[in-house]
Amino acid sequence: MIKQERARRTRERVLTAAAEVFASQGYSRATLSSVADRIGMTKGALYGHFSSKRSLAGALIDESRQAWTSLRTEYDTPGADAGGVLEDVVMGFAGRLQSDVRLRAAVRLAADCPVLARALSDVLVEVHNALMELVRRAQRDSGFPAYSPRLVAHLVMIVMYGLLHAPPGRVDDDRVAGGDSLWRLLFDALSGADGPGVLRAGDDAVSGP
Amino acid sequence: MIKQERARRTRERVLTAAAEVFASQGYSRATLSSVADRIGMTKGALYGHFSSKRSLAGALIDESRQAWTSLRTEYDTPGADAGGVLEDVVMGFAGRLQSDVRLRAAVRLAADCPVLARALSDVLVEVHNALMELVRRAQRDSGFPAYSPRLVAHLVMIVMYGLLHAPPGRVDDDRVAGGDSLWRLLFDALSGADGPGVLRAGDDAVSGP
Repeated sequence: MIKQERARRTRERVLTAAAEVFASQGYSRATLSSVADRIGMTKGALYGHFSSKRSLAGALIDESRQAWTSLRTEYDTPGADAGGVLEDVVMGFAGRLQSDVRLRAAVRLAADCPVLARALSDVLVEVHNALMELVRRAQRDSGFPAYSPRLVAHLVMIVMYGLLHAPPGRVDDDRVAGGDSLWRLLFDALSGADGPGVLRAGDDAVSGP
Repeated sequence: MIKQERARRTRERVLTAAAEVFASQGYSRATLSSVADRIGMTKGALYGHFSSKRSLAGALIDESRQAWTSLRTEYDTPGADAGGVLEDVVMGFAGRLQSDVRLRAAVRLAADCPVLARALSDVLVEVHNALMELVRRAQRDSGFPAYSPRLVAHLVMIVMYGLLHAPPGRVDDDRVAGGDSLWRLLFDALSGADGPGVLRAGDDAVSGP
């Protein structure tokens, strides 16, 4: 039992290290050696847990499916205001992308490797469809502007890819790079909000009011 | 003279082929051989024009600087309505990104390779600053919503990166993939437009009205 628990912990460490490598370097540049090095492991020991770069990537992708499902269940509760649910899901996913390198790696893998992208396809299609449905409800129940739900969902996903692939720390200010204020702006613009969430011109201090 | 003209044309063909390879595969996976193969050239002949993958990338980046300058000069004419200029520049740049694989390659290179990104940094900072300035003017002169100009500019660039890196043809419908309707939605949302540019809910045929 203790042995099993140790193996489980090592597996977790390997997955996190792999995610860090994938998220920063992409699939094609990542190597099993760099993952092993990162946690002071031999490549042989790593092979005891994952037989290939692809199986590592596959494990991260499976996990992202669970992350999405739990996020959706957490916010989309019966009776909740549709606009609020959409906001919580988008902002919650954005926050999770920032804090969870494993989720970030999974999303980045979608764009990096056609073979893996097929494996991810189900998750991405599900996220896209769920967003579309949430936008429709927010338009019907919460007076959101009548933009095409398909396009709104697509734009949200494109911003996600953009944040994962933008060159870090050059164009964007460090305070902006994480993306929190960016998601807030996107959400406000798409929901037609002109309320407290809106960042005022001249208020380039970026942190919201 | 005829010899020079022929050399110039070959150089152009090489640059376009290189751009196609960079735009679809990114910097690290691109090889000089695949560029040469693409236009039925020997690798030796290609070396007569460009000595390395990096010099090819450098030439594309230099060119993107000119593309941006000419775009800006074309639309930002004295006396033009600020909101209109912003729209023209954003939509014009989006259209150019779709039609011009060399520009697309240059922007993608920014995210792919830290060394090249430094070379591109000037262009990207200039684009970002110009967008910020256009947003400020559109807010002052054309009643655009008072979102932070820095964030708006940043969001536009993030969407650009996103479109260049999203996995093709899965989440997004083919008709959407090019990005034209997406840019239109983004522009409408950021400008607070509720006019003819807005795609109506249920009108998921995607092509604008």
